[in-house]
Amino acid sequence: MIRGLFLGKFQPFHIGHLEVAKIILHEVDDIILAIGSAQFSYTPENPFTAGERIEIARRSLLDGGVDLRRCLIVPVPDVGTHSIWVSYVKTFCPKFDVVYSNNNLVRTLFMDAGYQVNPSPLFNRELYSSAEIRRRMRENMDWRSLVSESAAVYLGEIDAESRLSKIGAPTQEEHTP
Amino acid sequence: MIRGLFLGKFQPFHIGHLEVAKIILHEVDDIILAIGSAQFSYTPENPFTAGERIEIARRSLLDGGVDLRRCLIVPVPDVGTHSIWVSYVKTFCPKFDVVYSNNNLVRTLFMDAGYQVNPSPLFNRELYSSAEIRRRMRENMDWRSLVSESAAVYLGEIDAESRLSKIGAPTQEEHTP
Amino acid sequence: MIRGLFLGKFQPFHIGHLEVAKIILHEVDDIILAIGSAQFSYTPENPFTAGERIEIARRSLLDGGVDLRRCLIVPVPDVGTHSIWVSYVKTFCPKFDVVYSNNNLVRTLFMDAGYQVNPSPLFNRELYSSAEIRRRMRENMDWRSLVSESAAVYLGEIDAESRLSKIGAPTQEEHTP
Amino acid sequence: MIRGLFLGKFQPFHIGHLEVAKIILHEVDDIILAIGSAQFSYTPENPFTAGERIEIARRSLLDGGVDLRRCLIVPVPDVGTHSIWVSYVKTFCPKFDVVYSNNNLVRTLFMDAGYQVNPSPLFNRELYSSAEIRRRMRENMDWRSLVSESAAVYLGEIDAESRLSKIGAPTQEEHTP
Amino acid sequence: MIRGLFLGKFQPFHIGHLEVAKIILHEVDDIILAIGSAQFSYTPENPFTAGERIEIARRSLLDGGVDLRRCLIVPVPDVGTHSIWVSYVKTFCPKFDVVYSNNNLVRTLFMDAGYQVNPSPLFNRELYSSAEIRRRMRENMDWRSLVSESAAVYLGEIDAESRLSKIGAPTQEEHTP
Amino acid sequence: MIRGLFLGKFQPFHIGHLEVAKIILHEVDDIILAIGSAQFSYTPENPFTAGERIEIARRSLLDGGVDLRRCLIVPVPDVGTHSIWVSYVKTFCPKFDVVYSNNNLVRTLFMDAGYQVNPSPLFNRELYSSAEIRRRMRENMDWRSLVSESAAVYLGEIDAESRLSKIGAPTQEEHTP
Repeated sequence: MIRGLFLGKFQPFHIGHLEVAKIILHEVDDIILAIGSAQFSYTPENPFTAGERIEIARRSLLDGGVDLRRCLIVPVPDVGTHSIWVSYVKTFCPKFDVVYSNNNLVRTLFMDAGYQVNPSPLFNRELYSSAEIRRRMRENMDWRSLVSESAAVYLGEIDAESRLSKIGAPTQEEHTP
Repeated sequence: MIRGLFLGKFQPFHIGHLEVAKIILHEVDDIILAIGSAQFSYTPENPFTAGERIEIARRSLLDGGVDLRRCLIVPVPDVGTHSIWVSYVKTFCPKFDVVYSNNNLVRTLFMDAGYQVNPSPLFNRELYSSAEIRRRMRENMDWRSLVSESAAVYLGEIDAESRLSKIGAPTQEEHTP
Repeated sequence: MIRGLFLGKFQPFHIGHLEVAKIILHEVDDIILAIGSAQFSYTPENPFTAGERIEIARRSLLDGGVDLRRCLIVPVPDVGTHSIWVSYVKTFCPKFDVVYSNNNLVRTLFMDAGYQVNPSPLFNRELYSSAEIRRRMRENMDWRSLVSESAAVYLGEIDAESRLSKIGAPTQEEHTP
Repeated sequence: MIRGLFLGKFQPFHIGHLEVAKIILHEVDDIILAIGSAQFSYTPENPFTAGERIEIARRSLLDGGVDLRRCLIVPVPDVGTHSIWVSYVKTFCPKFDVVYSNNNLVRTLFMDAGYQVNPSPLFNRELYSSAEIRRRMRENMDWRSLVSESAAVYLGEIDAESRLSKIGAPTQEEHTP
Repeated sequence: MIRGLFLGKFQPFHIGHLEVAKIILHEVDDIILAIGSAQFSYTPENPFTAGERIEIARRSLLDGGVDLRRCLIVPVPDVGTHSIWVSYVKTFCPKFDVVYSNNNLVRTLFMDAGYQVNPSPLFNRELYSSAEIRRRMRENMDWRSLVSESAAVYLGEIDAESRLSKIGAPTQEEHTP
Repeated sequence: MIRGLFLGKFQPFHIGHLEVAKIILHEVDDIILAIGSAQFSYTPENPFTAGERIEIARRSLLDGGVDLRRCLIVPVPDVGTHSIWVSYVKTFCPKFDVVYSNNNLVRTLFMDAGYQVNPSPLFNRELYSSAEIRRRMRENMDWRSLVSESAAVYLGEIDAESRLSKIGAPTQEEHTP
């Protein structure tokens, strides 16, 4: 049995992530979605909690017809020290065999730790981007077409647009947490 | 849709946990297994990493015929401050509706936070106990009958007995981490 | 008895803060001044220690004729995770009934936690601003007119201007803490 | 103006603490009650939050006829490293001139840092002890006579006895936070 | 060039440690003395700061005629998570080739990380023990014969006996840090 | 015996640092190189681990003919709170008598703590700068002339240029640690 590791912050999980997960699942038996920076939320770059990101990923995978029994979704807190980050991922996640990433630093860190690192499949990265989705939410533009249908419903339920606008426009320096 | 929260350290997940999870799944749609003290491992009371505990729980649930699509397994790091622990659980886990626990402190903390807290179903707690399993591993007594078959195989693969014996009998104070 | 929570970093507490506190004290019995980011100091945005900020606030309130017996000044360390910040405030501060804030994020976080949140009274925010005071200190411009008389004396005693200039102009990257 | 520092965990503040504070206030102008281990709560040795401890101390001082304007109550989080603890106290508290303590370690740490350290006044330490109060709460014995009247009322409101009993008798290892 | 890693808390470094270091230096070119639990001090088990432990080790090595140019003394803070501790040691220390330890857990952790682990040379462990030295200091018995001459002088200068007695006998629960 | 403290992040140690160390060693008996921000690595401003920085400093000092027995190289983790940073340096480093720094904030913090602070000797700071070396590594320009010969060899062995380029040009937001 071969298990692949797919790393991301998934702020939020979108159709590009879904398609990448599907392609990886053609190559491996199980996939771990490791949700990085798990302890952060309610910031412009990390608006959603780990729990919300799990919910969005689960619903998106279901929408995409992916078998949830083959997917492990694991939040991994940031550790603040890159040189021990790989150890931290290994501690929180069940054993994995191959890492999928196109990020040069991530690739180096895992290769130095002895892992096989494959390039992550590409799927229209210009269009499907978490940063773009956050920007559109903040500016009340269309973002629903970039996430799966159930994810869009859920993001509506938690009023993501409103949260992003509020985080993006703090008006009083002294009162911010 | 109703989701139940089942909290534990699961060091390790055993047949008693499995039966409790099955009973809870008769009452709710989905269950979250929240793995507490997630950052700890290789200590006498917390011998297994969060990743290993996820693996053991998954295999046990499969052995027990539980549908993994209805189970979310989420590691939650300890936060060192009981009064904000409930908030931390809420941050790491997707939304849940009812908490299952017989622990008075846990019950109080979640009830104070406005949650419905049900008693956890009881299943032969004298026999099925993580502390007892750890003790038996340390002393090379039978522990396999207390965990599911696949969990026993996995615990054999990672040489749990040997780890427990080593952790339990440190011989040189100055050299310990 | 009704208690209000007035949140800020108070870097430093100024005449605007004083006037807001007075207005709030017309509506509630007691006020908690919660000093956020309490652990930080000696940075351009957080130049003063929690202890210094307590001192400045106390002297300003005395200058303003406020009854100190109705004021609780409580330093609250930052916790790095917005979603549990409200819990942290609740742990460090005595019970409060209403939160005063115009910050959208703060308002959302406390409302989601079930608190009544009132708009903070406005008092000439363009003129009375901690950021403006820090800028004037750094550039040796007049800042004394923006803080109370005793606060100005105290800030002179601890040589705030000199601290701000030094923090603002680090000259050797390698030697900074 | 002379300010004295009175250090404690105040779990909870009792009549002995009150009498000590009164004696110190005969020798100094202001007193700082520094509440140590501020981030801990809901444990057998640290049952009350910092906020609750502030509330209890305030009410006790009022009961004792102490002028609250001469008292600063400041929660100080533990820092885990004794050698830098004095620095941490200095960061969170306004400037103080003399430390009151009978604890040899505390005396050494502050004297090494250049502070005048006076012996803390003694007031029937056998009877008035926080540990004894916690024990009595846990065992449903009389503890009300050891705290001030308003403190007893408040501790009744937050149901301190019940909290102490629950914390003191955890029944399920796997479910504890 | 071969470099050996010699791990310890060195509370304090004694003649046994010195002799072990000398034996290791017959087998390798350089030795790293990694001082664990570096952030702790002023506790019964960790009485000395990392800086003091460095000083004691340096003076002892000089007394023993060891060439300091072949010794690297590196404080390593505890990380609280055994499974990532090896990564932390690797981050703080220059590259090493072989680990010397008789501790089963340490041996397992480093062997799992791919390191050669040799048994640590034995040198009269019953007599030369840091715990025994701390006990003797606390009880005003002879400890000087267990450390090198210069180490004994230095421990006298910092008044180690007095510190150990004070730490060992806290008299006032409420006043301790 | 007089000991000087030379503070830096040493990312990396270069010929300017070496010349400063030599000048200081004319004035004092021993020098402590305190390596700040020790826990950070693999970031654009902190590319090298503490262990690597120790290695580079040692090799550079040897190249410069400095007697390593007079040099203590001590990694010091950042503590996140400037007001207690001096205490932290004192905890990790053996006793020192004089601090060398041209940084105004560092000078203030140590002077406030009662230390003698001397200006750091100047040595062609425009040319010899860690930031400049990092920039040149990132852009594949000549940096070897700015570090000692053995340091250049070592930086080649660990492929510093490649690390700096990768850190400097992350291509996929979602996959970064």
